[in-house]
Amino acid sequence: MQGQAQQQAYDRGITIFSPDGRLYQVEYAREAVKRGTASIGVRTADGVVLAADKQSRSPLMEPESVEKLHKVDDHIGIASAGHVADARQLIDFARRQAQVNRLRYGEAMGIETLTKTVTDHIQQYTQVGGARPFGVALIIGGVEDGEPRLFETDPSGTPYEWKALSIGANRTDVREYLEEGYDEELSLDAGIELALGALAETGDDDEGLTPQGVGLATIDADDPEYHDHDAASVEGYLDEFDLLASGDEAGSDDGGDDQSGEQ
Amino acid sequence: MQGQAQQQAYDRGITIFSPDGRLYQVEYAREAVKRGTASIGVRTADGVVLAADKQSRSPLMEPESVEKLHKVDDHIGIASAGHVADARQLIDFARRQAQVNRLRYGEAMGIETLTKTVTDHIQQYTQVGGARPFGVALIIGGVEDGEPRLFETDPSGTPYEWKALSIGANRTDVREYLEEGYDEELSLDAGIELALGALAETGDDDEGLTPQGVGLATIDADDPEYHDHDAASVEGYLDEFDLLASGDEAGSDDGGDDQSGEQ
Amino acid sequence: MQGQAQQQAYDRGITIFSPDGRLYQVEYAREAVKRGTASIGVRTADGVVLAADKQSRSPLMEPESVEKLHKVDDHIGIASAGHVADARQLIDFARRQAQVNRLRYGEAMGIETLTKTVTDHIQQYTQVGGARPFGVALIIGGVEDGEPRLFETDPSGTPYEWKALSIGANRTDVREYLEEGYDEELSLDAGIELALGALAETGDDDEGLTPQGVGLATIDADDPEYHDHDAASVEGYLDEFDLLASGDEAGSDDGGDDQSGEQ
Amino acid sequence: MQGQAQQQAYDRGITIFSPDGRLYQVEYAREAVKRGTASIGVRTADGVVLAADKQSRSPLMEPESVEKLHKVDDHIGIASAGHVADARQLIDFARRQAQVNRLRYGEAMGIETLTKTVTDHIQQYTQVGGARPFGVALIIGGVEDGEPRLFETDPSGTPYEWKALSIGANRTDVREYLEEGYDEELSLDAGIELALGALAETGDDDEGLTPQGVGLATIDADDPEYHDHDAASVEGYLDEFDLLASGDEAGSDDGGDDQSGEQ
Amino acid sequence: MQGQAQQQAYDRGITIFSPDGRLYQVEYAREAVKRGTASIGVRTADGVVLAADKQSRSPLMEPESVEKLHKVDDHIGIASAGHVADARQLIDFARRQAQVNRLRYGEAMGIETLTKTVTDHIQQYTQVGGARPFGVALIIGGVEDGEPRLFETDPSGTPYEWKALSIGANRTDVREYLEEGYDEELSLDAGIELALGALAETGDDDEGLTPQGVGLATIDADDPEYHDHDAASVEGYLDEFDLLASGDEAGSDDGGDDQSGEQ
Amino acid sequence: MQGQAQQQAYDRGITIFSPDGRLYQVEYAREAVKRGTASIGVRTADGVVLAADKQSRSPLMEPESVEKLHKVDDHIGIASAGHVADARQLIDFARRQAQVNRLRYGEAMGIETLTKTVTDHIQQYTQVGGARPFGVALIIGGVEDGEPRLFETDPSGTPYEWKALSIGANRTDVREYLEEGYDEELSLDAGIELALGALAETGDDDEGLTPQGVGLATIDADDPEYHDHDAASVEGYLDEFDLLASGDEAGSDDGGDDQSGEQ
Amino acid sequence: MQGQAQQQAYDRGITIFSPDGRLYQVEYAREAVKRGTASIGVRTADGVVLAADKQSRSPLMEPESVEKLHKVDDHIGIASAGHVADARQLIDFARRQAQVNRLRYGEAMGIETLTKTVTDHIQQYTQVGGARPFGVALIIGGVEDGEPRLFETDPSGTPYEWKALSIGANRTDVREYLEEGYDEELSLDAGIELALGALAETGDDDEGLTPQGVGLATIDADDPEYHDHDAASVEGYLDEFDLLASGDEAGSDDGGDDQSGEQ
Repeated sequence: MQGQAQQQAYDRGITIFSPDGRLYQVEYAREAVKRGTASIGVRTADGVVLAADKQSRSPLMEPESVEKLHKVDDHIGIASAGHVADARQLIDFARRQAQVNRLRYGEAMGIETLTKTVTDHIQQYTQVGGARPFGVALIIGGVEDGEPRLFETDPSGTPYEWKALSIGANRTDVREYLEEGYDEELSLDAGIELALGALAETGDDDEGLTPQGVGLATIDADDPEYHDHDAASVEGYLDEFDLLASGDEAGSDDGGDDQSGEQ
Repeated sequence: MQGQAQQQAYDRGITIFSPDGRLYQVEYAREAVKRGTASIGVRTADGVVLAADKQSRSPLMEPESVEKLHKVDDHIGIASAGHVADARQLIDFARRQAQVNRLRYGEAMGIETLTKTVTDHIQQYTQVGGARPFGVALIIGGVEDGEPRLFETDPSGTPYEWKALSIGANRTDVREYLEEGYDEELSLDAGIELALGALAETGDDDEGLTPQGVGLATIDADDPEYHDHDAASVEGYLDEFDLLASGDEAGSDDGGDDQSGEQ
Repeated sequence: MQGQAQQQAYDRGITIFSPDGRLYQVEYAREAVKRGTASIGVRTADGVVLAADKQSRSPLMEPESVEKLHKVDDHIGIASAGHVADARQLIDFARRQAQVNRLRYGEAMGIETLTKTVTDHIQQYTQVGGARPFGVALIIGGVEDGEPRLFETDPSGTPYEWKALSIGANRTDVREYLEEGYDEELSLDAGIELALGALAETGDDDEGLTPQGVGLATIDADDPEYHDHDAASVEGYLDEFDLLASGDEAGSDDGGDDQSGEQ
Repeated sequence: MQGQAQQQAYDRGITIFSPDGRLYQVEYAREAVKRGTASIGVRTADGVVLAADKQSRSPLMEPESVEKLHKVDDHIGIASAGHVADARQLIDFARRQAQVNRLRYGEAMGIETLTKTVTDHIQQYTQVGGARPFGVALIIGGVEDGEPRLFETDPSGTPYEWKALSIGANRTDVREYLEEGYDEELSLDAGIELALGALAETGDDDEGLTPQGVGLATIDADDPEYHDHDAASVEGYLDEFDLLASGDEAGSDDGGDDQSGEQ
Repeated sequence: MQGQAQQQAYDRGITIFSPDGRLYQVEYAREAVKRGTASIGVRTADGVVLAADKQSRSPLMEPESVEKLHKVDDHIGIASAGHVADARQLIDFARRQAQVNRLRYGEAMGIETLTKTVTDHIQQYTQVGGARPFGVALIIGGVEDGEPRLFETDPSGTPYEWKALSIGANRTDVREYLEEGYDEELSLDAGIELALGALAETGDDDEGLTPQGVGLATIDADDPEYHDHDAASVEGYLDEFDLLASGDEAGSDDGGDDQSGEQ
Repeated sequence: MQGQAQQQAYDRGITIFSPDGRLYQVEYAREAVKRGTASIGVRTADGVVLAADKQSRSPLMEPESVEKLHKVDDHIGIASAGHVADARQLIDFARRQAQVNRLRYGEAMGIETLTKTVTDHIQQYTQVGGARPFGVALIIGGVEDGEPRLFETDPSGTPYEWKALSIGANRTDVREYLEEGYDEELSLDAGIELALGALAETGDDDEGLTPQGVGLATIDADDPEYHDHDAASVEGYLDEFDLLASGDEAGSDDGGDDQSGEQ
Repeated sequence: MQGQAQQQAYDRGITIFSPDGRLYQVEYAREAVKRGTASIGVRTADGVVLAADKQSRSPLMEPESVEKLHKVDDHIGIASAGHVADARQLIDFARRQAQVNRLRYGEAMGIETLTKTVTDHIQQYTQVGGARPFGVALIIGGVEDGEPRLFETDPSGTPYEWKALSIGANRTDVREYLEEGYDEELSLDAGIELALGALAETGDDDEGLTPQGVGLATIDADDPEYHDHDAASVEGYLDEFDLLASGDEAGSDDGGDDQSGEQ
């Protein structure tokens, strides 16, 4: 790694490598991801779980307005972290690709295929000048031929397949939590417990989670339909797993800026 | 956050992330929004209220010339704050989209759909070089299937749904006022009282408001037609809610620059 | 406002916001407007008055060569201040728009519609790179459906409607003069008196005005034809309103640069 | 006016205004005009006179090679000063416009119309990036409907109409000479005397003029044909007006650089 | 070689040579290759061996997700090292070229032809501005007319043919190992032993290799089909050649960043 | 003229004027011309003479390889000085223009017409960004309607007509020599003597010229065919005019760089 | 020549001349040529000889992989020195030109014609922005109408014809060797001896040459077919001329970087 003064010399554009072979603009876009709230993905034997911190920044903001989980096709969901407006571009891109695949081949798009189409799109923004990288990471989860799959895309345009992962704030802490609790033979419910437990780790202290502040979606391997859990369903799980916040006010981060562009 | 010298290194173009993952040009565009006068939106059970500070800067300027509230379609209105000429571009864009929707699908455009079409348009100006972001925020309000909806767009291109919000000058103070006074079961008239009361908060002291200096529009959930209230109607509300300025001269800010490009 | 060293960092291009949300290049274009001689517009109940300081810089220069008042359509005139060559571009643009409107819709173009078409054109030069803003302001006056209208365009592309206004040199002083003397019920002749009186204010001292150094145009509400007053007519008004310069030589600014690009 | 250090910050491109609203690149192009030798235009009641300093820089250079006077159409001539290669571009442009006008409308192009077509072309090079302004000024003279007309174009693209003017070196001195000697009722011959006298003013001292070093063209109002006077004719006038150089060697500036790009 | 301060002056773009004739951006792209994990190629009399370090950075990451070996056509495989997203672009390019060749000529593409098509594509990104070089090296191996061939592409776009080589981390050490152990008459199995032994050299110490952390592919000269060895097959070879890691935990690099964009 | 520090601020691109109205990049291109060896043109009553210093830099280089004289059409020749590759571009351009003229109009192209077509082409490279000026000057000589003509083009795109001139190294010294020796009534042979004598002036001392180091071409007014004199013919003239070098070795400049790009 | 600090100001792009009229980027590209290993060309009465230092940098690299000699058409060969990937582009360009010539005119392309087509292509990359010059020099040799011809192209795009020359490393030393040994009446075998002797000069000391480290091609004037000599043939010549290295290990430069992009 270079010293700071030298680093600055090579981070002004995506078309410049630094002397140690880094693309600083791509690395800075990763910082935009870290500025977003956490999203979690867990793959179990029975299906895929997506969970996200969707606490709104004001009690006047509609919780639905915090878009962290997105249905992309019947059998595919995406969780995002980072620059919201960039995420929307990639989600739209993914939806169109999935639709085109259905029209052209008459069948549902594979999860890996979709992921790599998205990452190739992202890569273009890291090599050709006149634009900036996407400041967002995605967890793409779904069921393909009865098999649950879980992928990540990062701002460099690299695709990774995971058993369980988190993106956004506190990634390192959550990863340890996931590594400790993960087991390939988890049931879907146990996967939900792991995901929600990981999400609770990203909070500042042990306040627990509120149903309004949590997004939860599952795709069952046997019946591969994207299922977005409502607040009542989430509350049930939080109660069952002893993750429910005691006080009601925990749901809103009532200090600070309510407008940052990242989620 | 970086120190000032370092910040300067990363804020010269929209295609550059700073080392902490920020897009400074987008954040500066938010400052242009703050330089504009306040606009308020309140969603009630009975409809949507849009209000705006439209005091003109000279008694010779036509009050109608201060364009803060815009009818976009029969059932949709937009309140703006920030760079006026940029606002006009986005309002025109929104109007064309609403019109195209009617022509193509034979029905009124959804409020959320319109908002996201606008924010996707805004996002393009934050990722591709050769232009600058839009220096304006919008409150998009309307009634969709009998249900009042209220959205915000910011210069990053992020859509937010709100129960009540303000954009432009004194946003933080007004937000507190709105949080204290808001109730989901407000009647439309109570919503008007809340919006006008919030607007009065943005003034320098307790001088009250003048009918000419206030823009007010409502969209009733039962009869979803954009209704622009005239000065007499506004004066009635101000009188009813005890917000009417005592002196006549309060209506014009007769010092300072009369030409800034922001409203 | 930022200190000077910092300001300089953000004023090199139209595609850059400063940290306090300003577009310095647009503000500098406003300075080009101030470098031009004054133009005045007054809206009366009976019609619109446009007046302009058109003293030529040399007795050898043809007075007609100083183009400050422009007929755009039968019922529309424009007064300009600032960079002459830029003004010519916008005047040509306005003329083409008015002509196209007549051809396409078979009727005269509305004054507000024309103004906003012009300001949208101006705005494009403030958001997309590779060009500079227009260094000129316009007063667009005319009669629409029997009603006199008076608009201003500035380099940011913002449209304003006025009862009376001045652009160019000494704007602040003239504005005070206009505010004091304006009355909504002015006759057209009283409007001419107000406009010429305001113009006399922009001179260095109480020398008065010369017929050759003053441009005057009116559009009567009852007979909406752009009427350009000749020197004899102007001399009659100046004499009537006691604004006629005593000496003959006052008409030419015979010192200084005769070529600056601004009028 | 700004100090020198600050000036430098705003003079690197045509698309940048300085804080005081100036376009420095356009002003520098005016300096290129001043580096050229003088050209004079005089409008008389009987026709238009164009004169130019066309001393060649070496006795081996063909005098005809110094192109300062150009026939553009039967009834139009142009005198230039400044960057020669740029002048050639504009002369060609003017010739094509005049020819197109004849073809399209079957009549000779108006002098004012041609001038404004040329200045609009020049203005484009001052607003859009990727090029530089034209470093040349033109005197466009001709007869239109029996009336002599005389215009100037400058690097900003502003058109001016004059009774008499000079461009190029020593503009200020020559202007005083022209103001003193000009009379609207001058005969064509008196106009030639004024023009040649003005030209003699631009020389370093009272050496007088040589026939080879002077270009002279006239367009008679009664018979509007561009008439280029040969050396014998010029010598006659110089002799008549007592402006003939005594020694023969005055005709060549035999020191200094013989190649500068300006005339 | 220049001093550091001077070097910095010439490394900001691919279109700039340094005074000593170097293209620093291309050299920095080579550093991105070195940041990737090692890939090995060995050409034997009986076929080609490709091996790669594909240890995943977390036990939760799917080993298949680490893409170092790629089947490009029936008879061609590619091993990569460096920026993953860039590698994917080149692999896709190679696959399309191979497919087009089959369609157009009805036969399998030659290994050398394919390599040079790829390097010519890479070269374009080093000469024309607006983009950056590819931060990846490839080993292209295959069988052509029964003869094993092994090529390398580097970020400058130079093609090299090798008997055995490594790319990515620890290239210099591995090269010595390969030079010592290589013999033109190696059998395919001996080639596998050499490749896996070389791979073991790239590890930090003598821990050995785990089946999950090793990618292995062979193309037999007699039956030229790309054969990707599964973990069981790899384990057999590791056991046979005494390269098997004793402990199970060696397979994951469980410290450090799990997201770097290079492999 | 500006001081050096200031000069540097305005010489980085062709689209920038300096505060004193100069185009420094064009002036630097003139320096490239001075770096080339001399070429001479002499116009006599009987025809045109072109001569050039074409000493090769190594005895192994073919003398024909030094291209200073070029036949462009039957009746036109061009001598060049400066950047060789740029000269080749302009010569090709001139040849194509001459050919097109013959095809289109069925007659030989005029010398002045060709010259101005070339200079207009050169001018484009001095006004529009994204390229550099041509670093070469040309002497264009020929016979048109029986009359010898001789023109120069410089890097600014200015055309000059000359009786006799030199371009390239030692221009000032040679000019004096030509001015002293020139007479309008020179015969073609006397013109050759003057040209060769001028060429001898450009040498470092009085060594004389070698036939291999001199290029000589003539176009006779009576029989306008470009005639390239061979070494024997040149030797005859050198002998006749007592300009022949005594020693044989003078022909090669056997020190210094043999590769500079200029001739 | 300028001092270093000033030089740096003018060497950042191909579109900038320095104050002394140099194109530094082209000169730096010449340095890239010098970083390549030597190539030699010798023209004899009987044909053309091309020889090249093609020692590979590792014993594992295939000697054929070092491409210094290229057959371009039956009767034309090219030897290169410098940036390998750039050389490949020019060789491909030359091959296509030769092929097109055969198709279009039904005959073999002339050597000089091909050379100038290539240099014109190279020149474009030195005048228009957005790219860099080619960092390679070529020796283009062949037989045309029974006559051997030998040309050089350099990064400025200048064509030179030579009797014998070297490009790449140690050019100056080799030139002296060639000047001493060259004779126009050399037989082809004597030409081979001169070329190989010159090549031996480029080595660090008197170690001699190895057959694998030498490329040799000839084109016989009587039977103009490009003939690439194999190692056995080369060994024969080396033995005959007493240039054969005593030890076997001399063939590989087994220290240093094996990947530089230049040959």
